[in-house]
Amino acid sequence: MDANSLKDLLQGVKDGSLDIEDALKELKKLPFEDLGFAKVDNHRNIRNGYPEVIYCQGKTVEQVKGIVERLMEKNNNILATRAGKEVYEGIKEITEDAVYYEAARIVVVKRREAIVTDKIIAVVSAGTSDIPVAEEAAVTAEALGNNVIRIYDVGVAGIHRLFANMDKINSANVLIVVAGMEGALASVVGGMVDKPVIAVPTSIGYGANFGGLSALLTMLNSCASGVGVVNIDNGFGAGYLASMINRL
Amino acid sequence: MDANSLKDLLQGVKDGSLDIEDALKELKKLPFEDLGFAKVDNHRNIRNGYPEVIYCQGKTVEQVKGIVERLMEKNNNILATRAGKEVYEGIKEITEDAVYYEAARIVVVKRREAIVTDKIIAVVSAGTSDIPVAEEAAVTAEALGNNVIRIYDVGVAGIHRLFANMDKINSANVLIVVAGMEGALASVVGGMVDKPVIAVPTSIGYGANFGGLSALLTMLNSCASGVGVVNIDNGFGAGYLASMINRL
Amino acid sequence: MDANSLKDLLQGVKDGSLDIEDALKELKKLPFEDLGFAKVDNHRNIRNGYPEVIYCQGKTVEQVKGIVERLMEKNNNILATRAGKEVYEGIKEITEDAVYYEAARIVVVKRREAIVTDKIIAVVSAGTSDIPVAEEAAVTAEALGNNVIRIYDVGVAGIHRLFANMDKINSANVLIVVAGMEGALASVVGGMVDKPVIAVPTSIGYGANFGGLSALLTMLNSCASGVGVVNIDNGFGAGYLASMINRL
Amino acid sequence: MDANSLKDLLQGVKDGSLDIEDALKELKKLPFEDLGFAKVDNHRNIRNGYPEVIYCQGKTVEQVKGIVERLMEKNNNILATRAGKEVYEGIKEITEDAVYYEAARIVVVKRREAIVTDKIIAVVSAGTSDIPVAEEAAVTAEALGNNVIRIYDVGVAGIHRLFANMDKINSANVLIVVAGMEGALASVVGGMVDKPVIAVPTSIGYGANFGGLSALLTMLNSCASGVGVVNIDNGFGAGYLASMINRL
Amino acid sequence: MDANSLKDLLQGVKDGSLDIEDALKELKKLPFEDLGFAKVDNHRNIRNGYPEVIYCQGKTVEQVKGIVERLMEKNNNILATRAGKEVYEGIKEITEDAVYYEAARIVVVKRREAIVTDKIIAVVSAGTSDIPVAEEAAVTAEALGNNVIRIYDVGVAGIHRLFANMDKINSANVLIVVAGMEGALASVVGGMVDKPVIAVPTSIGYGANFGGLSALLTMLNSCASGVGVVNIDNGFGAGYLASMINRL
Amino acid sequence: MDANSLKDLLQGVKDGSLDIEDALKELKKLPFEDLGFAKVDNHRNIRNGYPEVIYCQGKTVEQVKGIVERLMEKNNNILATRAGKEVYEGIKEITEDAVYYEAARIVVVKRREAIVTDKIIAVVSAGTSDIPVAEEAAVTAEALGNNVIRIYDVGVAGIHRLFANMDKINSANVLIVVAGMEGALASVVGGMVDKPVIAVPTSIGYGANFGGLSALLTMLNSCASGVGVVNIDNGFGAGYLASMINRL
Amino acid sequence: MDANSLKDLLQGVKDGSLDIEDALKELKKLPFEDLGFAKVDNHRNIRNGYPEVIYCQGKTVEQVKGIVERLMEKNNNILATRAGKEVYEGIKEITEDAVYYEAARIVVVKRREAIVTDKIIAVVSAGTSDIPVAEEAAVTAEALGNNVIRIYDVGVAGIHRLFANMDKINSANVLIVVAGMEGALASVVGGMVDKPVIAVPTSIGYGANFGGLSALLTMLNSCASGVGVVNIDNGFGAGYLASMINRL
Amino acid sequence: MDANSLKDLLQGVKDGSLDIEDALKELKKLPFEDLGFAKVDNHRNIRNGYPEVIYCQGKTVEQVKGIVERLMEKNNNILATRAGKEVYEGIKEITEDAVYYEAARIVVVKRREAIVTDKIIAVVSAGTSDIPVAEEAAVTAEALGNNVIRIYDVGVAGIHRLFANMDKINSANVLIVVAGMEGALASVVGGMVDKPVIAVPTSIGYGANFGGLSALLTMLNSCASGVGVVNIDNGFGAGYLASMINRL
Repeated sequence: MDANSLKDLLQGVKDGSLDIEDALKELKKLPFEDLGFAKVDNHRNIRNGYPEVIYCQGKTVEQVKGIVERLMEKNNNILATRAGKEVYEGIKEITEDAVYYEAARIVVVKRREAIVTDKIIAVVSAGTSDIPVAEEAAVTAEALGNNVIRIYDVGVAGIHRLFANMDKINSANVLIVVAGMEGALASVVGGMVDKPVIAVPTSIGYGANFGGLSALLTMLNSCASGVGVVNIDNGFGAGYLASMINRL
Repeated sequence: MDANSLKDLLQGVKDGSLDIEDALKELKKLPFEDLGFAKVDNHRNIRNGYPEVIYCQGKTVEQVKGIVERLMEKNNNILATRAGKEVYEGIKEITEDAVYYEAARIVVVKRREAIVTDKIIAVVSAGTSDIPVAEEAAVTAEALGNNVIRIYDVGVAGIHRLFANMDKINSANVLIVVAGMEGALASVVGGMVDKPVIAVPTSIGYGANFGGLSALLTMLNSCASGVGVVNIDNGFGAGYLASMINRL
Repeated sequence: MDANSLKDLLQGVKDGSLDIEDALKELKKLPFEDLGFAKVDNHRNIRNGYPEVIYCQGKTVEQVKGIVERLMEKNNNILATRAGKEVYEGIKEITEDAVYYEAARIVVVKRREAIVTDKIIAVVSAGTSDIPVAEEAAVTAEALGNNVIRIYDVGVAGIHRLFANMDKINSANVLIVVAGMEGALASVVGGMVDKPVIAVPTSIGYGANFGGLSALLTMLNSCASGVGVVNIDNGFGAGYLASMINRL
Repeated sequence: MDANSLKDLLQGVKDGSLDIEDALKELKKLPFEDLGFAKVDNHRNIRNGYPEVIYCQGKTVEQVKGIVERLMEKNNNILATRAGKEVYEGIKEITEDAVYYEAARIVVVKRREAIVTDKIIAVVSAGTSDIPVAEEAAVTAEALGNNVIRIYDVGVAGIHRLFANMDKINSANVLIVVAGMEGALASVVGGMVDKPVIAVPTSIGYGANFGGLSALLTMLNSCASGVGVVNIDNGFGAGYLASMINRL
Repeated sequence: MDANSLKDLLQGVKDGSLDIEDALKELKKLPFEDLGFAKVDNHRNIRNGYPEVIYCQGKTVEQVKGIVERLMEKNNNILATRAGKEVYEGIKEITEDAVYYEAARIVVVKRREAIVTDKIIAVVSAGTSDIPVAEEAAVTAEALGNNVIRIYDVGVAGIHRLFANMDKINSANVLIVVAGMEGALASVVGGMVDKPVIAVPTSIGYGANFGGLSALLTMLNSCASGVGVVNIDNGFGAGYLASMINRL
Repeated sequence: MDANSLKDLLQGVKDGSLDIEDALKELKKLPFEDLGFAKVDNHRNIRNGYPEVIYCQGKTVEQVKGIVERLMEKNNNILATRAGKEVYEGIKEITEDAVYYEAARIVVVKRREAIVTDKIIAVVSAGTSDIPVAEEAAVTAEALGNNVIRIYDVGVAGIHRLFANMDKINSANVLIVVAGMEGALASVVGGMVDKPVIAVPTSIGYGANFGGLSALLTMLNSCASGVGVVNIDNGFGAGYLASMINRL
Repeated sequence: MDANSLKDLLQGVKDGSLDIEDALKELKKLPFEDLGFAKVDNHRNIRNGYPEVIYCQGKTVEQVKGIVERLMEKNNNILATRAGKEVYEGIKEITEDAVYYEAARIVVVKRREAIVTDKIIAVVSAGTSDIPVAEEAAVTAEALGNNVIRIYDVGVAGIHRLFANMDKINSANVLIVVAGMEGALASVVGGMVDKPVIAVPTSIGYGANFGGLSALLTMLNSCASGVGVVNIDNGFGAGYLASMINRL
Repeated sequence: MDANSLKDLLQGVKDGSLDIEDALKELKKLPFEDLGFAKVDNHRNIRNGYPEVIYCQGKTVEQVKGIVERLMEKNNNILATRAGKEVYEGIKEITEDAVYYEAARIVVVKRREAIVTDKIIAVVSAGTSDIPVAEEAAVTAEALGNNVIRIYDVGVAGIHRLFANMDKINSANVLIVVAGMEGALASVVGGMVDKPVIAVPTSIGYGANFGGLSALLTMLNSCASGVGVVNIDNGFGAGYLASMINRL
């Protein structure tokens, strides 16, 4: 209900075409009416400038296929995350356009070409085991139209490897840092650059890493400023947020 | 040690001016030498384009004054956070330029005019008790040269108050959402905008909020994409990161 | 043994068809009967006015069947929760009246028609993955004689979907809100209605959701008043409590 | 602004004493009014049918007085919780109608008589130290127009004391159970009645009660059905929810 | 209601002096009636063979005095735990029989001589800082009529001190082991004796002792059999349980 | 080294048969020498008056068989806990005396008749799912020569079932209470008897029971005195401690 | 590339057999070489004086083989930890020098003889189930050129077994203590020796050991000085640190 | 009583100036002497080769003075940790030899010159607020006869500051790394050196540092090998362990 409808309502009361009880009933709904900022789900694509995303974990292949079919009617690009090989094969049956990024566990269906920015997102990761999460972030950011460079296996236990990549690191507009175990890499990178850093703790590690809690706390308590943290293993979230920032 | 020095070293070995043992000793230091990305602490200002920051909590007034005096020799702008009134009065004795933002507990000493961007950072907060953290974020962002609007007391228990501010919210380039208790505001705002959201959990609440843990977990698990989280009550960190993003 | 049987017993004593010693013996068994591995609580049916409930998790099909057979002698309605398909098939062998609600993982054996109230319980859920818990709540409430409406997939990341259901939400006498991840939906619904809200955190999510802890804390710390919380994933408990309230 | 004032406004439009533009202006202010440090939610009164509530913890006496003054212009009833004696004295300066419930730490300002239901809410508590939380629940429920009975000091360590109160317990339409330490009382009461139970864990206890966590977990895991839990020490929340249920 | 009353009731139904509806009403209360195992609070003394206990923490001196006065009418012995000096002085005003055990923070009022067993309870403690809790246990056990020996400051960091006390340790019928920090003493003592060990974790320690959690977990996970654990710092509980065992 | 050996040593120094350096060396070992309280592992049986115990979890059948064979050379009774059927079958190959208690997952090899006390240990459990832990406690206590009665399925959700067993409960000298979910049964039983209660939390439950943490905290915080707690699911530990107490 | 190869390279530059550009190119690769999925850190060998380590958990046999092949070109010794039998067989296909330590789950490939110190590292462990972690520590220390003695199954439940090993314990220069359950062994050993103790908590135990947390907290809070702690189950880390200390 | 006094005693026995019974009596007191509230462990001095340590926190000035007086009779060096100024002043009244290290909160009483090793312990700390813990470690190590260098304020947020100290860091035989907030410094230093690193997490930080838990977990999960961890804020423990290692 916008200002005009409200005026009409009052006019109705004034001229007697609407009685007071009915007007009262109408007014009670006032705070909750749709305020015009959103209408239907497919409008989100326009609002966010992004393809539709399907989070596949906990969904059957049939459920994913159903969603893909519906979305394809709208000609959307599609990003299916946490997708096993069997999910990819299921989507492949629907469309030849499906491409599988195995390390990232992502299926991309590209129907329209995204406008690509040449500003760089750097994905920096600590250990070999962090690569699946790092790739989820990287492939997500690429699918959203960003220019991504990967700097992997540069954990702080051998910090010279990180410094050997200083030029690449300094070329980035936004950085995603992916690290498990103690997650110290985010603080070190955050102290080296004057660009926003999105930190992704991973559940990699053993003993008292408590499923990623150690890296999560490390990153939240980072002594370097300019670091924002996403959920444990949430490579997609990091790639999405980095893209949002990179495309401002 | 850069590539040229390395060449010089090898040349020295070749022409006999440097013996092999000395060269070996020099090479062993190789990975840890200063790689030219930073020299002294005061250079950080240039690197980051930002004033110097003093975190006052746990420091005596005398200690803060000592740091302020040293920084003023370099003619830096200064931001002193978590500063009580007595800190402000101490700094005031040194310089007339000190301004105190009481709600934010921040002292700003402005020596040079910052270049202000007209892109907007919106600071959105849930309850009255969250205002100190929200102000810390807002004043930080302003001191770093941003155009800040405040949208306070719009918690989800009365969500119409949030919607009444839709125009302001949509005008922002970056959003900071400050909330304690269950921290649900970050998810709601994150679902409404297509701009990056920096979420700040506060320790406000009682019972099972466990010092801000409830709001922290809520924000990390946000079902809306595009949300990065900083530490509990870390208004400064949010303002700093938002500014970094806003000025890209 | 329900109120009627008890009356019959007393009538028997009165008219001399049952002697006092035998009646006494019968009454002493009243509160429980030994079943070897479990004592079936027949008294509770009278006391609570509800069918008997079997929580199947951790019980073998044979154990469940044993309990069902015993209960059927008393002509009770039966609700078997957390029941896999093999449990349903086992019960089906005993009685044709068994109906399986697959999404809810519930078997209902209806022997007597329940008196149905036309006051509405609305089950509101956030995401697709929350549906099994939501259905457990909904089917439980229906089996207890309530009129249930379902409002699914209205999580706060796209809050307009929730508002599009305002009329349905306002028609309810009691609301059950089921949400995982950050669980913010309970606060938003709690702020919109003046009816009791039963909040059910689910274990859905990943990373730092810690098996439902994040949603649980969110709901306990809700800034909206009028919200009561049940255990993680406890759809049955929510449906039971909502029914109890709805039938007052 | 309550339903009556709204009707008056519409009547004014109808009979011409208020022109449409002024009515519109008035209506736009409806959902909230700016108070500088807090927005008072006048709409909620209509929506929820309840007096305005001020949560005093963390607010200065002056801030509370400001809110009270504003609310009294609207002729609302007021409930100020977590109010120390000095808050009461501050409110007393504004209105003679303020009454202080010391054990409950609540100030009530009654301007209009609430319609009282004769259905009973029973507040049951375990130990002497739980009484402040129990009283917060009881006084809240009374202020919201309910008939409240108190059954205190009936913890499970001497369970015969609880059974001596069976008649009172069975007379209630809704029960609030308040317990600290191990919180077992909620399960025992929940197993005895067929009415909804609102369980309030308190932070009372020592050692491994971890600030109320032990009682909270006990209540969430209750083996009795029909129990909903609110936040630790949240007597107000329990009284509010119980009233909502009792007045359905 | 016992078997006889039940027979009377049925007799009443049979001979018509009680109509069926009234009998039914009476029978519905059946499971909850007082079953004769307890009548009033002061009977607990007889049941348990123990003095009345007042837990003073969180009570005012006036409240404690009120309880003491009431109990003295029954001529009970009294044990007031967690009692500061001001509590002792308050009780002293009522009775000259009050004795203060300062290290244990206990006031004992002895009105009747307890029958003392000569079987020994040994209270073993690790460090100087654990003495208040150890004394609470020791004085409690003495007040309950036990013969107590104290073996203090024998923590495992200097395990020869423990062994120098082997004769004393072996003379005990029941042992109470009090330890903070890592709490290892309980396991070592448990492995040395074939008598029941009551382990009391204390909150003594720093850093990652987390308020006694480290000692609590140590004791629960003891690799020695025959160890039962009470709450953190709960010297009274340990003394009470040890006495119960010692007097079997 | 005992007092006599020490005297001999000094005598040797005095008469010159031992030089000072050798005496010094001998004295330095002093605090750590075997003090005569234990010699070899098989002596523990004598010390404790109990059979040897093998904890089978994490051991292969072959490993268990090896230990059994070694112990049988000494003619000991043997108690193998957490033993699957395949462990039983392995032991059966060695000795016909092996008896398997399936619900308790215990194998008993009885070579000598234990002296049985007629004092009673009552094992009380809350739900059907708690029976394996309850049986582990009961069989352990029986194997250690105690007279055990079982009172199962008497959880507090239907507290009349507990009261129907008052006579049995009151006949016990020591009680073991086994309960999962919220674990309230320990407090209720502890408040009803004046005998020591050993409480065993189980990991039974779902949602926020956190693997038995909820029941563990409940039992540690029990408002009833006289309750000692063992580790989660540790039926053996409870049976062992109860036996130790029962046989004092 | 070790110190000798580096010297060879410089010699080549000196005598002209290697030109400067090629040497430079070679040196730039020095700190790391790209292996596709992991960068092998050859520089660390020189820096730390130790063989290369491969942490196999989470890597496929093929990945491990790839790393081994690469490392063998450099003639390094190799230590592959957390290696299942199939990993050993994979490495065996590459080199006959591979030796498998099954209990330790370690594969050692020895290409050059390490210089062995005769100073002793003692590995002390509590229970049979702790042996895998203890062996990981022992084999690691041996592979790093240390003289290791093992003292197993000396947990504090039978402390005389520990004391029977006093001579061995006192012969050690560094001690590694491995214990699960309550982890008390580290404190007891730490109190007996004046040598550094490296404590390794294991995840062995049940119930409230919470995956090794109980032993971890015990060791961190040890009342004995001179104890450093590594991660839960981290036998390799303990062996590595002990070796570092032993070879100082 | 040190090795020399023991020799004197035996000499006395040998030459007849001390009879055997008196010597025996003296020897029996050897391991500990009763001081009423604490047993001072004189044997430890001989065993560990270190001065006596008094942990002052939780002790009154009078208690500390009593212990100091007793120890001075034995002519020991004394180290009093966590000592406020008033403790220092109390000790000063007893002996002029007391020296106060304010930043470290340590009092040292030096009676005999310690033999100082010239091998270096480096104490490296992250932030200004970590200095008290770092100084506790440094002063402890110095009092135990080590050569200590301090490298402060080199946190990873400005990692060039750390590298500027590479020569100092490489000169150390043992390193102590003290860091709060995210504690990443330990991993970075551990990756740079081939010497043992003792890591001390501090409770410095705010929000989700949870009293030092974040730094503790970081250090336990360090991806660099060769790092041992002590308790939160335990500077003394780190200095003691480092000294033990440095003096091997």
